[in-house]
Amino acid sequence: MKLVVIGGDAAGMSAASQARKRLGPDELSIVVFERGHFTSYSACGIPYWIGGAVDDRDKLVARTPEEHRKAGIDVRLGHEVVGIDLDRREVLAHNLDDGGEVRQPFDHLVYAAGATPVMPEWARVRDAGVFGVQTLGDGEAIHAWLDRKPEPRNAVVIGGGYIGVEMAEAMVLRGLKVTLLDKAPQPMGKTVDPDMGALVQKSMRGLGIEVVTDAHVDGLETEGGRVRAVVTPDGTLPADVVVLGLGVRPNTALAKEAGLPVGSTGGIRTDLRMRVEGLEGVWAAGDCVETQHLLTGRPVHVPLGTHANKQGRVAGINIGGGYATFPGVIGTAVTKVCDLEVARTGLTSKEAHAAGYSFVTATVDSTSRAGYYPGAELMTVKLIAERRTGLLLGAQIVGRNEAAKRIDALAVAAWNRMTVEEMTALDLSYAPPFAPVWDPVLIAARKATEAVHASL
Amino acid sequence: MKLVVIGGDAAGMSAASQARKRLGPDELSIVVFERGHFTSYSACGIPYWIGGAVDDRDKLVARTPEEHRKAGIDVRLGHEVVGIDLDRREVLAHNLDDGGEVRQPFDHLVYAAGATPVMPEWARVRDAGVFGVQTLGDGEAIHAWLDRKPEPRNAVVIGGGYIGVEMAEAMVLRGLKVTLLDKAPQPMGKTVDPDMGALVQKSMRGLGIEVVTDAHVDGLETEGGRVRAVVTPDGTLPADVVVLGLGVRPNTALAKEAGLPVGSTGGIRTDLRMRVEGLEGVWAAGDCVETQHLLTGRPVHVPLGTHANKQGRVAGINIGGGYATFPGVIGTAVTKVCDLEVARTGLTSKEAHAAGYSFVTATVDSTSRAGYYPGAELMTVKLIAERRTGLLLGAQIVGRNEAAKRIDALAVAAWNRMTVEEMTALDLSYAPPFAPVWDPVLIAARKATEAVHASL
Repeated sequence: MKLVVIGGDAAGMSAASQARKRLGPDELSIVVFERGHFTSYSACGIPYWIGGAVDDRDKLVARTPEEHRKAGIDVRLGHEVVGIDLDRREVLAHNLDDGGEVRQPFDHLVYAAGATPVMPEWARVRDAGVFGVQTLGDGEAIHAWLDRKPEPRNAVVIGGGYIGVEMAEAMVLRGLKVTLLDKAPQPMGKTVDPDMGALVQKSMRGLGIEVVTDAHVDGLETEGGRVRAVVTPDGTLPADVVVLGLGVRPNTALAKEAGLPVGSTGGIRTDLRMRVEGLEGVWAAGDCVETQHLLTGRPVHVPLGTHANKQGRVAGINIGGGYATFPGVIGTAVTKVCDLEVARTGLTSKEAHAAGYSFVTATVDSTSRAGYYPGAELMTVKLIAERRTGLLLGAQIVGRNEAAKRIDALAVAAWNRMTVEEMTALDLSYAPPFAPVWDPVLIAARKATEAVHASL
Repeated sequence: MKLVVIGGDAAGMSAASQARKRLGPDELSIVVFERGHFTSYSACGIPYWIGGAVDDRDKLVARTPEEHRKAGIDVRLGHEVVGIDLDRREVLAHNLDDGGEVRQPFDHLVYAAGATPVMPEWARVRDAGVFGVQTLGDGEAIHAWLDRKPEPRNAVVIGGGYIGVEMAEAMVLRGLKVTLLDKAPQPMGKTVDPDMGALVQKSMRGLGIEVVTDAHVDGLETEGGRVRAVVTPDGTLPADVVVLGLGVRPNTALAKEAGLPVGSTGGIRTDLRMRVEGLEGVWAAGDCVETQHLLTGRPVHVPLGTHANKQGRVAGINIGGGYATFPGVIGTAVTKVCDLEVARTGLTSKEAHAAGYSFVTATVDSTSRAGYYPGAELMTVKLIAERRTGLLLGAQIVGRNEAAKRIDALAVAAWNRMTVEEMTALDLSYAPPFAPVWDPVLIAARKATEAVHASL
């Protein structure tokens, strides 16, 4: 049996590895086509490599092509798949290095081509200091650019989502003067509610990042093949390097051409086993697929490494003759700006409204440890609960010092469709170095319960 | 209407405060009898006050008697209740300061007399440097003893549970030479499985604590009214101060005398609303009650401040005319030894076995952050899952740097009766500063799932 995988990062290599774990080389041949020159790397780690917290690119690589090859996976780097023929069951790939062409037959195909950064027309300038942040190759290019002489001094980051915020911090750590442009009224507007986003904005400004909200970009000015400025209706911002954090889109051009079904989010549609809908032996996983949001029942596109790994694993187990499913997501995410941690799960107020929910919110300020214990830091917890039923719809945390990872308890509560009133009784861990005697999560659940009662 | 509360710490004052919140002074009078001289303090914080992390006793007091009085709660310090007359509906209290006697009638009674440290016969020596650690008064006495001249140099801590381990650390931080005697083969034997306890023991020894396991104590040697040594079958250990961490028992002598029902654990039996079983208008909460373990259905006695607060709150809401329940516990707890964090939820292997479960275990070593991210530290996660069904029965975490609080996600999973296979799909937060792309909890769930499959 022959397995072909398109894309050699988290989803594709997880699928390949799991299939290999179940079927030996005699039972299954595995060929992976990867356009770039790395496999199984942490794209999420790129901002920390740029910022210097991680000192070596190779640390971001969980498993090298050589390691995969030793495990019996034929990884072909520098190979771009340009065609999928579902009738003949083969893919056509170009060897980008030598211009050669490869036709590779398959019994099983895993489509794991990832996502591509959103690039407005004006940003499509090559080798000019304008970067998306998606692949390890992108990270290398940014590093090289920042090391040029004369060294870039002014950075403009466009977009205030995760990547934008993380890259803005990275640039500050590199000593650049950083401006972040966000079209929304505050950064992380898609991630958290405005009141929580305001806390993030304040923290970014405290870092020395110039945060410009409600911003619009008209275009770029270049000179001698290098970006020189970002042009906005409010004036021209000097820029020696521009980073785009405008989100990503599923990379599905090839899939659409071959007839793979694409959903309303732009992602490929799969069933719970990550099999492409309606197609036998064709699987998809990672940033190129859509999945189900368990609190709305609707399809969503959530490009995150953790989902990509799980989905790839599920596909690989099923290809290998096992049984596994990926039931969906509830929208958990976490990041930090310097020492300010930001986390969310479930739906934001805006998302809950869009889904048709009527809801109440409760926001509490508490501390990460007992107030009297050294290192206790303020943390803010916001809960969103359905009116009347009290169903936990969403949660957001902003704080310092071990605040953010507490979102996991809330994620598991939302996953299990708990009500905020049930949550007030939860047996969460308590000791002074770890929490106040009423954990902030419990205080928030109490306040949300009162809000639900008031909504009856 | 008249409410009398016996005991002015977490449970009693939570009940009083919640009742007061719902009923004003015209509707409800509230009298609290407290034997000591503090209210609403964090007993769990005492070791950190002794060790110096908390510099001031008053920081441990969440609410002073004066603050409660201002809120309309008549707190009587130095008053020991010596009799409860359920027929006449009154309590008899002694004023310990002036020898006076008070008869106080009630419509509602809250029994929140807490627990008392287990004290073997040989330990019942007054003013000799032998201490239990239960009340803020105990903490004061220890502080005063350590400040005596000549300063104590050798400390022996007897018992390797939370209090023993925390007090051993506190004594090291005070510069004493510390020996911890535990009758079990490793410290924290009631809290975690032996393999996890071995990690704790190693860490304690690294701190310079002499840990003696399988230990027995024959008695104490005193000289001139001061303890001088602890006598064991293996020799005599010099001791200028002895701390007992042999656990606590529900303080129910008075309750039993009055006819309140006491269960097999020694704790008072209540219903879910914290009403004493079979008695109208009589409530109990905190370290003196037993509660239900949600994973065994059996009564347990779990004396923890977090439960005391919740139970007191529930009692107070119900007394005040509201509705609230305390459904039970699943055995979550957390502590630390210097920078080694230890957490648990659900059942240990021993407890699961005693409850009649057949189970598998899975232990994984991972890191608290992405392996390449600064500050990533080893953490060990152990899961206990029911054979065949895969029901999560228990979890234990030992690690550093934000490892322990992750137990909460596992606690919520166990609370919701998830299986380890369901847990492999959980949408937990991921970003390199907060977790590897496979969170240690997910890796453990994967391994436990494999163990469950193998048990089919």
